[in-house]
Amino acid sequence: MLEKVDLSKKMSKEEYKEKMPLLESRLGELQRQCKSLGIPVMIVFEGFGAAGKGLQIGKLIQSLDPRGFEVHAIQRESEEEKMHPFLWRFWTKTPAKGRIAVFDGSWYRKVLIDRFEKKTKKAELPDDFHSICSFEKQLTDDGCVLIKLLLDISKKEQKKRFQKLKENKETAWRVSKGDIERNKHFDEYQTIMEEMLQKTDTDYAPWMIVEAMDKRFATVKIYSAVIKAMAQQIEKVQHKKAEADAVKAIRTREENVQVSAVAEEAAKNVNDLQESILRNADLTLSYTKEEYKKKLEKLQKKMEILHGELYRRRIPVILGFEGWDAGGKGGAIKRLTEKMDPRGFVVNPTASPNDIEKAHHYLWRFWRAVPKDGHIAIFDRTWYGRVMVERIEGFCTKQEWQRAYKEMNDMEKDWADAGAIVMKFWMQIDKDEQERRFKARQENPEKQWKITDEDWRNREKWDQYEDAVNEMLIRTSTEYAPWIVVEGNCKYYARIKVLETVVDAIEKRLKE
Amino acid sequence: MLEKVDLSKKMSKEEYKEKMPLLESRLGELQRQCKSLGIPVMIVFEGFGAAGKGLQIGKLIQSLDPRGFEVHAIQRESEEEKMHPFLWRFWTKTPAKGRIAVFDGSWYRKVLIDRFEKKTKKAELPDDFHSICSFEKQLTDDGCVLIKLLLDISKKEQKKRFQKLKENKETAWRVSKGDIERNKHFDEYQTIMEEMLQKTDTDYAPWMIVEAMDKRFATVKIYSAVIKAMAQQIEKVQHKKAEADAVKAIRTREENVQVSAVAEEAAKNVNDLQESILRNADLTLSYTKEEYKKKLEKLQKKMEILHGELYRRRIPVILGFEGWDAGGKGGAIKRLTEKMDPRGFVVNPTASPNDIEKAHHYLWRFWRAVPKDGHIAIFDRTWYGRVMVERIEGFCTKQEWQRAYKEMNDMEKDWADAGAIVMKFWMQIDKDEQERRFKARQENPEKQWKITDEDWRNREKWDQYEDAVNEMLIRTSTEYAPWIVVEGNCKYYARIKVLETVVDAIEKRLKE
Repeated sequence: MLEKVDLSKKMSKEEYKEKMPLLESRLGELQRQCKSLGIPVMIVFEGFGAAGKGLQIGKLIQSLDPRGFEVHAIQRESEEEKMHPFLWRFWTKTPAKGRIAVFDGSWYRKVLIDRFEKKTKKAELPDDFHSICSFEKQLTDDGCVLIKLLLDISKKEQKKRFQKLKENKETAWRVSKGDIERNKHFDEYQTIMEEMLQKTDTDYAPWMIVEAMDKRFATVKIYSAVIKAMAQQIEKVQHKKAEADAVKAIRTREENVQVSAVAEEAAKNVNDLQESILRNADLTLSYTKEEYKKKLEKLQKKMEILHGELYRRRIPVILGFEGWDAGGKGGAIKRLTEKMDPRGFVVNPTASPNDIEKAHHYLWRFWRAVPKDGHIAIFDRTWYGRVMVERIEGFCTKQEWQRAYKEMNDMEKDWADAGAIVMKFWMQIDKDEQERRFKARQENPEKQWKITDEDWRNREKWDQYEDAVNEMLIRTSTEYAPWIVVEGNCKYYARIKVLETVVDAIEKRLKE
Repeated sequence: MLEKVDLSKKMSKEEYKEKMPLLESRLGELQRQCKSLGIPVMIVFEGFGAAGKGLQIGKLIQSLDPRGFEVHAIQRESEEEKMHPFLWRFWTKTPAKGRIAVFDGSWYRKVLIDRFEKKTKKAELPDDFHSICSFEKQLTDDGCVLIKLLLDISKKEQKKRFQKLKENKETAWRVSKGDIERNKHFDEYQTIMEEMLQKTDTDYAPWMIVEAMDKRFATVKIYSAVIKAMAQQIEKVQHKKAEADAVKAIRTREENVQVSAVAEEAAKNVNDLQESILRNADLTLSYTKEEYKKKLEKLQKKMEILHGELYRRRIPVILGFEGWDAGGKGGAIKRLTEKMDPRGFVVNPTASPNDIEKAHHYLWRFWRAVPKDGHIAIFDRTWYGRVMVERIEGFCTKQEWQRAYKEMNDMEKDWADAGAIVMKFWMQIDKDEQERRFKARQENPEKQWKITDEDWRNREKWDQYEDAVNEMLIRTSTEYAPWIVVEGNCKYYARIKVLETVVDAIEKRLKE
């Protein structure tokens, strides 16, 4: 893309002065509209050193309401950031609905500067490009406007600008050794950039090349590009809303209903043939109290030692727990963590999302909770709510939950690629056992709080959940993040199986 | 995905007999509906050897109208196929609208059997997975139903089946050495399959695992899966049609129009700042007749020799020509090919698509025309019509042409990865020169056929075309398939530049 770019473009002061006022007021207006429509906006500035990213960001935010945006300067990873998966620091910075996030440098650092400096290995690149595209697709699928600007200058111009900066004591510090290196090997760096452009110039997040030799020209082009992208998204959202109204009226058409029925019948047929993973769990498996106590003590001691070893080796562990209501998640988590150093793990209970969480992508809150290297994060209920409760209750669209399998696999792969042990447990009990437990809870004053009307309502949808869980287990059990079905009718057995599985996985990893 | 699969599933004869009649009549009915709605359907059978692909395909087609489907058995590549890019044989087999194509084996061979046999190198895999996903995305984006079935059996069962086949003289030939090898190293092959599933289980083309130990069970599951997918797509198409009607009514809403105007204004602003690639072409470049003749003779002689060399080295060449009407495409192509052996090249004129072409994906006709190794294919107008005339005249949606840049880049990358030299020429003239040529054509009785009213109408949209061409040049000029802007006001100069560029590229490749 770069070789066709004409860097000689300029804009006169007069033209600039004539154009800017309208652009500035437009941008402010669009920010307000995005806020009221709840559209998140991300603006990424990338490009050659000294191309003027900082200056242009300064120009851009002049027209923005400062209460509505943040600017993130992306430098080398901090120690804290290094101890997390690559995309963690960017996921946590994704803007809430209606807000604007400006990135001075971005996730592209990994496939640009870090690649040039050989910190990113060539063998990693396909995975990195995949992770980046998946990240951007997820955000834009979720309604985010993502504007990617690449500021382009020539080798000669860059050298001149570096020299000028160095001559002045106050600005000399801004030119790093890396800058000089990249100027010296400008062509090589440009080739790296060209490959990056080709791998990541997508229909959902296209690149805009900004000729940045002339500052006025660049400013006007950036403003225009940002305005265009924001206005298009606003139009899309407004149009969709109007469309949704119009479409409601046609939902009842008979021919649709007929085919729907055929599709549903066939879906049910497929599910009937499929729903065996859970059914096949051998729920007679059990331990006596004595067996349990003996095993528990031994395993907990082991876990304690392994936990310390994990910390020293800086290996993070992510454990997700899902299962039927009253399936024994809480008890299993309690026995797992009982003897562990509380400074080294955290249990994240996952309830329905709060307002802040709702204002972000559904995976955002889980990315935020990713543990540091050496720490253990346990999730009591997880991101898989998307393909269970959200799917069944219609909290998200069909497209959304169908897309989610791949999104969650991609997320877990990012974590595993960063060195994490990732495992997911499904606590399986049968319907009778659930009823027994529900009733026992109701009769026990200390446990009454644990049982609600909603639990009984969910129970009525047992079959639907079973279909959804079976599909989930098939589509998201991977070798880097396997699902473990835990036979849970006997609580003793279930707790020991969880502990044993975790201990085995850690021991295996420590031997590698 | 495979480790969670329960292979013990069975279906009794009674249940089978009860279920099948309804499934069979449903499938026939859905085939008719797909035909009348123009929905293409692709059904892919993959899985372990002796899992019963052939048998199940036989069962499936029993319910289909034989005039409406084809079955493609995918074996090792033939000599002819080896001389084309990997996906060529599959692109050319994609079904027309309303038809069904059944694949016994498929493009997955490259990342399964060929990988197991080390014919596919590990370093190629990321590109192969990318090509496959891009292929499937393009087809499903275009409205194709793609059903991917993976027939799963155990190692033991496979061995048993192979033995049974070998015992019988009439079936022994069906068990190949490769089959035995893959049974011996079943676990290794399964790991390969697992990775394939993870890389290609997408929301637009998900995998369906079919437990194939019991034939009746498998048949019912396959029928159900195919019915479900077809019915869903029919519903979607019908719904979209109804939606489109409903949406027409709201197109006029004022708020939409206002934001649209802002977006358009900004788009124009961006384009104004961008439209320099074509404007920057130095159209004063020229040769005298003498210079031209001398150079032409020399270059054509060279080209003749290089053409033979290409043939011997089995290097394919793909040259695309685009440009303004009367820009000199025809003349340049004529001079390029004049001295070449006509058995070694073909010129494909690209007009608006005929009925058969319209019934396929817009890239299908270009995939069909990909040259064999050692041959040259020249396109007089190309696939880039999608982002020029189709964009400007509204023959495709905005989403479609925006997606097309990446689709065309991916296609050209597939060709280049298969060893082809790929180049695209834009024949540039200015508006005055075009007028002169149009008038000259009108006045010359022999050339009058070359000029139509449409040419004059297109001329009125010069600015729109210029914007579209500039964006196209930026987004689709790659190092594996570059655009060359040919300064064309002087025909002599343009013809020589084309010849020179082609000669240089071939010489460079031959030296590698």
